[in-house]
Amino acid sequence: MDMQADKNPAAEWLTANRDRLWQSLMDQGKIGETAKGGLNRQALTDLDRQVRELLIQWGKDAGCDISIDKIGNIFLRRAGMDNTLPPVMTGSHIDTQPTGGKFDGCFGVMAGLEVIRRLNDLNITTRAPIEVVAWTNEEGCRFPPCMMGSGVFTGEFTLEEALATRDAKGISVAEALDSIGFAGEKTVPGHAVGAYFEAHIEQGPILEDAQKTIGVVLGALGQRWFDVTIEGVESHAGPTPMQLRHDAGLVAAELITYVNRIALEHAPHGRGTVGCLDLFPGSRNVIPGKVNMTVDLRHLDSHSLNLMVTGLKARIHELEELHGVTVTLTPTADFAPLYFADACVSAVRQAAEALGYEHIDIVSGAGHDAIFLAEQAPAGMIFVPCEGGISHNEMERADPDHLAAGASVLLNAMLNAAGKEA
Amino acid sequence: MDMQADKNPAAEWLTANRDRLWQSLMDQGKIGETAKGGLNRQALTDLDRQVRELLIQWGKDAGCDISIDKIGNIFLRRAGMDNTLPPVMTGSHIDTQPTGGKFDGCFGVMAGLEVIRRLNDLNITTRAPIEVVAWTNEEGCRFPPCMMGSGVFTGEFTLEEALATRDAKGISVAEALDSIGFAGEKTVPGHAVGAYFEAHIEQGPILEDAQKTIGVVLGALGQRWFDVTIEGVESHAGPTPMQLRHDAGLVAAELITYVNRIALEHAPHGRGTVGCLDLFPGSRNVIPGKVNMTVDLRHLDSHSLNLMVTGLKARIHELEELHGVTVTLTPTADFAPLYFADACVSAVRQAAEALGYEHIDIVSGAGHDAIFLAEQAPAGMIFVPCEGGISHNEMERADPDHLAAGASVLLNAMLNAAGKEA
Repeated sequence: MDMQADKNPAAEWLTANRDRLWQSLMDQGKIGETAKGGLNRQALTDLDRQVRELLIQWGKDAGCDISIDKIGNIFLRRAGMDNTLPPVMTGSHIDTQPTGGKFDGCFGVMAGLEVIRRLNDLNITTRAPIEVVAWTNEEGCRFPPCMMGSGVFTGEFTLEEALATRDAKGISVAEALDSIGFAGEKTVPGHAVGAYFEAHIEQGPILEDAQKTIGVVLGALGQRWFDVTIEGVESHAGPTPMQLRHDAGLVAAELITYVNRIALEHAPHGRGTVGCLDLFPGSRNVIPGKVNMTVDLRHLDSHSLNLMVTGLKARIHELEELHGVTVTLTPTADFAPLYFADACVSAVRQAAEALGYEHIDIVSGAGHDAIFLAEQAPAGMIFVPCEGGISHNEMERADPDHLAAGASVLLNAMLNAAGKEA
Repeated sequence: MDMQADKNPAAEWLTANRDRLWQSLMDQGKIGETAKGGLNRQALTDLDRQVRELLIQWGKDAGCDISIDKIGNIFLRRAGMDNTLPPVMTGSHIDTQPTGGKFDGCFGVMAGLEVIRRLNDLNITTRAPIEVVAWTNEEGCRFPPCMMGSGVFTGEFTLEEALATRDAKGISVAEALDSIGFAGEKTVPGHAVGAYFEAHIEQGPILEDAQKTIGVVLGALGQRWFDVTIEGVESHAGPTPMQLRHDAGLVAAELITYVNRIALEHAPHGRGTVGCLDLFPGSRNVIPGKVNMTVDLRHLDSHSLNLMVTGLKARIHELEELHGVTVTLTPTADFAPLYFADACVSAVRQAAEALGYEHIDIVSGAGHDAIFLAEQAPAGMIFVPCEGGISHNEMERADPDHLAAGASVLLNAMLNAAGKEA
């Protein structure tokens, strides 16, 4: 990779074709469309096959070489001047949640296709080749885990474990890939990548709230997940005075408020969520004797994340003393924070700036294929707003202008990374 | 009723027979005994029939007239000098929870029997007759509602609605009463009562914690129950920053802590409990969009109870503004506080004092037959400690000395109310 953005004269900042991009999104969005205007196009179904074939046809029409690897990832390759260089890659996924939208994932792939089409329009040959990839089974809803295709490509998962994964009906990934004809020949882990960019809808409310068009993604939040069990004493709500209670529900409430407070104290990148809570015995006039709950803490830097966890443990100790309860905290996941490469982040920020789009730095709270790719290549992401921050929902919406802006930023960032004819 | 306690010379304070009382409790406790030493003797079962017949035999042995009313309440009547006077009554119930103990209810009936036996021992004739009652189906676990027998006796429920109530197998109270031969002749609502006393294990931890033998029961807490629904916005735990959340779970937590705080601020008789809480969608990395929960507020005086409810509503309004959520509060029960008659409360306190038992004033947080009786006669209750405050549990335990103390207080309070030969 050879970043040349600072040498790029203003006249050379390119823009994507808004209407073509939108039309591609709408065309792919007919395959698996739901009554509410969303998509139900789960990985390795016949609908997935249909959209894969459409994508391949579009790639061929744009003059790309097509290849498919053993986990079904599809690569559309546009040759460069020096095809010994590792490609500058972009992409995302075209599988969806059962009640998903037309933009999550699909935007990243269609934006990549638009980059190739725009380079064709302008007759630009890049120095390094350009590749657009559609990663298999990013959603993981039919075959867990999520980000399967990019995980196998980067060696995060072995091909064997991925192929052996079965859906709820007992069908394996291997069988499903065969049945749709997408068990490819290309070996995994995959080839070297010069740089990886991924355009994606934000799936959160920050850009809309801040009225910004482009989110320059700094990295992905580290995550520390816990199961929490609180054991108090179950007793009757009437006869038991307040000061003699060991109310597991009250301790759970204090923990929920603490988890929120500690995240707020580590703004703007702290997150604290209690998503599950079961209270026993669950009778309106019985003081809860036991609570099972979850805690999800996130932050962009490890030190802050550690401080949040330390704070949680200290608060638990205080509450145990105060309420005479026993709390057990069991870690269930620990993902380190990830920072995207400075060069990629800068290329995205610079393109947004040069194109005149309102932008802010942002972090990814959710998982994306780019997070796996970042382990083996300089990587970056571009976020665009989605309406109300709503995603994984048939109501998922995005503005064509915002999507075109995201594709334009992607185009320039990739061109910057790939280099071009003098 | 003619309270004469203050005229009662110290020499005349009587005590119950500790060992006989304990033996009766253990004897009745063999009928329906569980492997863990508790009782499973639900209302109107064959086991209930067996204990009813044992009680009647004991009543006959003690020279009592036996009568049974149309809802199956059993009355053991010991004649007085003036049998035109309404009886001074005591009792409780001998049905149990499916995993109940040997003392809840049974103690009150056996203590009443011990009063009669002790009066017989001492050859004392009271002015008013004495009655011991075993109320049908106090627990309500087989046939809701609880306190059915005393409710029909006092006109709180009609006989027709009670008889028509069916258990989970479709058997009606009328059928069950017939099948065990306890559909009596005596009409309901029942006869006039001169005064009613009920001895009961506390079913709470206060006496044990305070190391007191006798609880002088001032009354029963008023209760205000609510269903609460909190509607926020479900969103992803990662992408959604803290300040843009509408976290229904956090609002629930703030309400739980408020419910506890407001009850503590109205000590010692305030109670606040959240016993049920369901959080949706209930996924560890999704911010809860909706919570259903319950609130149970109790206090001995209406004014304080109203202040607690007003405080709750104000706090809900604050939380709606602060978190951008919608909270609906639906009342599900409203029981006014009940104060037992001063004369009965004083008679209990005076007897405990004279007999040298450590005592404190206490309130009943749970339902008891005495609460219905108090609507139509001066009534009072005597609490004795139970181990760990545990009740409705096979582990329910009580100390024979404490039980004897309770029966002794009952004996003197009843004698005071009934009057006796000069």
